[in-house]
Amino acid sequence: MILGLDIGGANTKAASSDGAYVESIYLPLWKHAPLTERLSELAVRNNPRAVAVVMTGELADCFSTKLEGVLSIKAAVESSFSCPVYFWGVRGFSWDDPLELAAANWSASASLVAQDFGQGLFTDMGSTTTDLIPVTGHPLAGRTDLQRLMRGELIYTGMLRTSLGALLPEVMIKGCKVPTSPKFFAITADAYLALGEIQPSDYTCDAPDGGGKDLTSALRRLARTVCADLEELGEDGAIEISKQAKARQIYLLKRGIEWLCSAYDLDRVIAAGIGEGLLADATQTLGLDCILISARYGRKLSSVFPAYAVARLLEPKL
Amino acid sequence: MILGLDIGGANTKAASSDGAYVESIYLPLWKHAPLTERLSELAVRNNPRAVAVVMTGELADCFSTKLEGVLSIKAAVESSFSCPVYFWGVRGFSWDDPLELAAANWSASASLVAQDFGQGLFTDMGSTTTDLIPVTGHPLAGRTDLQRLMRGELIYTGMLRTSLGALLPEVMIKGCKVPTSPKFFAITADAYLALGEIQPSDYTCDAPDGGGKDLTSALRRLARTVCADLEELGEDGAIEISKQAKARQIYLLKRGIEWLCSAYDLDRVIAAGIGEGLLADATQTLGLDCILISARYGRKLSSVFPAYAVARLLEPKL
Repeated sequence: MILGLDIGGANTKAASSDGAYVESIYLPLWKHAPLTERLSELAVRNNPRAVAVVMTGELADCFSTKLEGVLSIKAAVESSFSCPVYFWGVRGFSWDDPLELAAANWSASASLVAQDFGQGLFTDMGSTTTDLIPVTGHPLAGRTDLQRLMRGELIYTGMLRTSLGALLPEVMIKGCKVPTSPKFFAITADAYLALGEIQPSDYTCDAPDGGGKDLTSALRRLARTVCADLEELGEDGAIEISKQAKARQIYLLKRGIEWLCSAYDLDRVIAAGIGEGLLADATQTLGLDCILISARYGRKLSSVFPAYAVARLLEPKL
Repeated sequence: MILGLDIGGANTKAASSDGAYVESIYLPLWKHAPLTERLSELAVRNNPRAVAVVMTGELADCFSTKLEGVLSIKAAVESSFSCPVYFWGVRGFSWDDPLELAAANWSASASLVAQDFGQGLFTDMGSTTTDLIPVTGHPLAGRTDLQRLMRGELIYTGMLRTSLGALLPEVMIKGCKVPTSPKFFAITADAYLALGEIQPSDYTCDAPDGGGKDLTSALRRLARTVCADLEELGEDGAIEISKQAKARQIYLLKRGIEWLCSAYDLDRVIAAGIGEGLLADATQTLGLDCILISARYGRKLSSVFPAYAVARLLEPKL
C-alpha cells in the first residue's frame, strides 16, 4: 500500500493510493494531540511500502513559526514509519527549503485534478477553510497562505469550525438587525446541524462550549451568539441565524468562484471536500458546470482528497 | 466596609463603597474557575458588613441557561459571606425573578451616574464589551443583553478580549486587501500592546495561544490573523493590523455614541472602564463633551465601576 497523509491543525487524514483505505482522525495539534503515537498506530495497522505527506498543521498556534511547525510535523512522520517517506511541497516532491512544505496540500490535489480532469477551477471546502485553485494544465496559485488569501485562492471559511461571530457580524431576527458577539460561542457545524444538513456523527470537531453535538445543544450555542437563551430567542430565531450563516458562506464562495473563473477564463468547477454540496450550490447560481469529486471517487475520498491525491502522485514515481 | 462585587464571565471585580479598596481577579467561569474559594478569601480578608452584587457571568457557556448561571453565581456568593448579601437587578435591589439579575451591572453604574452627574450618555468599555446607556434623570435601556444589542446599547467590543478575526474581516497590508482568518488567533490586547497603549501587566486575560504577553509574542499572534509568520509579514505589517483594529473600534464606538446621543438628545458622554481613552477619542470626533469617571474617582475605580457603583447604591439603604 502507498499511504497518503494530510496533516492539518485539527484533523489528520489518511488514504491509500488505490482508494480502498480512508480515515480521518481528529488530532488538534494546538492542544498538543499525540501525533507521533497516532501515526505509529497507522504505520502498524497499514504497513505501507511508502508514505506521501502534505501538511497545513504548521500554522497551529502551538508553533511559534511555520518553520518550527514544518520541522516538528516532518520529524513526527519520519519517526513513525520505517518505510520511505516523501513530502510534497508547492513545487512537488522535490524541494530545497522546508518552508515549501507549508500549507501545500491544495497543490497535491490540484496536480491530480490537472491530470485526471484537465482545466477548471479546483475547489475544496473542508471543516475550516476552502481552497480555490485555478487549473489550466497545471495549478496556478500563490505559494503561501498569505499570498493565497490576497489572491482569493484561500477563503477562510469551512463547513464545521468557522466561528459564527466572525462569519456574521450581524443577523436579522424577526425583521430586526442584531449585532452578534465576536466570541467563540457557535460554529458552522451548529448551523448545519440545526438545518439538518449534517448529522451529529459529522460534527467531528469539538463544540465551542465543549458540550453535546445534539440538536438542542447546537440551538443553545446559536442563541448565545446574540447573547440570548434558547428560551428567549426561540428555535425559530436559532434557525434564522443558521440560514443566514449558510447564505453568507454561499455568497463568499460564489464571489470567490466568480472572480477566479473570470480572471482565468475557466467555465467549470471541480468540487471536493465535505462542503462539495455548498460549492455546487454556489456554482449553480453562476451558471457554470460543477463536477463533483465524489461522483468519480466516492464521498469518502472527496473528504480526504489531498491525502488521496498525494498518494496517487507518488505511485508512478516508485 | 460595604463590599461591591461585579461577577463577570472572565473577571470578578470588587470595590468598597468608600473607594479605598479595589481589586480585579481573573476568574474565567467557563473554565470552571474556583469562584466560591476566591470569594471566601475576599470575605475573610475584608470582613464586610454587607455585600452588594451585580453580575454578567451567567452568559458564560459553562451554564446551559441564564437562569442556571444566575442561580449558580448567587449561591456561590451567598455561601461565601456570612453578612447580608444584596443583589442588584435591572429594577434595583428589589426583584421578583432571578433573571432580572442577569447582566444588570450597567444598570447599577448608570444609576450612580444619574445621581452623581445627571444627564448624559453613560459609556463603559471593559475588556470584552462596551455599554452605552442613555441617562436622562434615570437610566434608559433594554433589560436583556439581546434587547440592548438590538438597541445599540451593548456593543460587543472590548479593550482586551475581542477576536481580531471578527473585528476585522479584512485588513489592508501595504496597499493590498487581505481577508483575515476568523479563528481565535489574536485579540485586541495584542493590538494595543503592539501599539504601546497597554503594558504586559494590563494584559490580564489569557493570550489566544496561551503564550507570552511580551511584544514579540503579540506580534506573532497578529501575523497569524493573516496566516503569516512574523518573519513573513514583518513588524510593520503587524502594526498596520493593530492600527486598523483600533480605528475599527473607534468607528464602532463613534457610530454607537452618535446614534444614542441623537436619539435621546444628549450632549455629553460620561466614560468609564479600561477603554475610557478610546471612548474619549470617539466622542471627540463627534464634537461632544466627554467626562471621564477616572477624573472624579481615579483610574482604578473607573475600571471596576459597576462594583463600586453597586456598593455606593447600597450604602444609604443600610
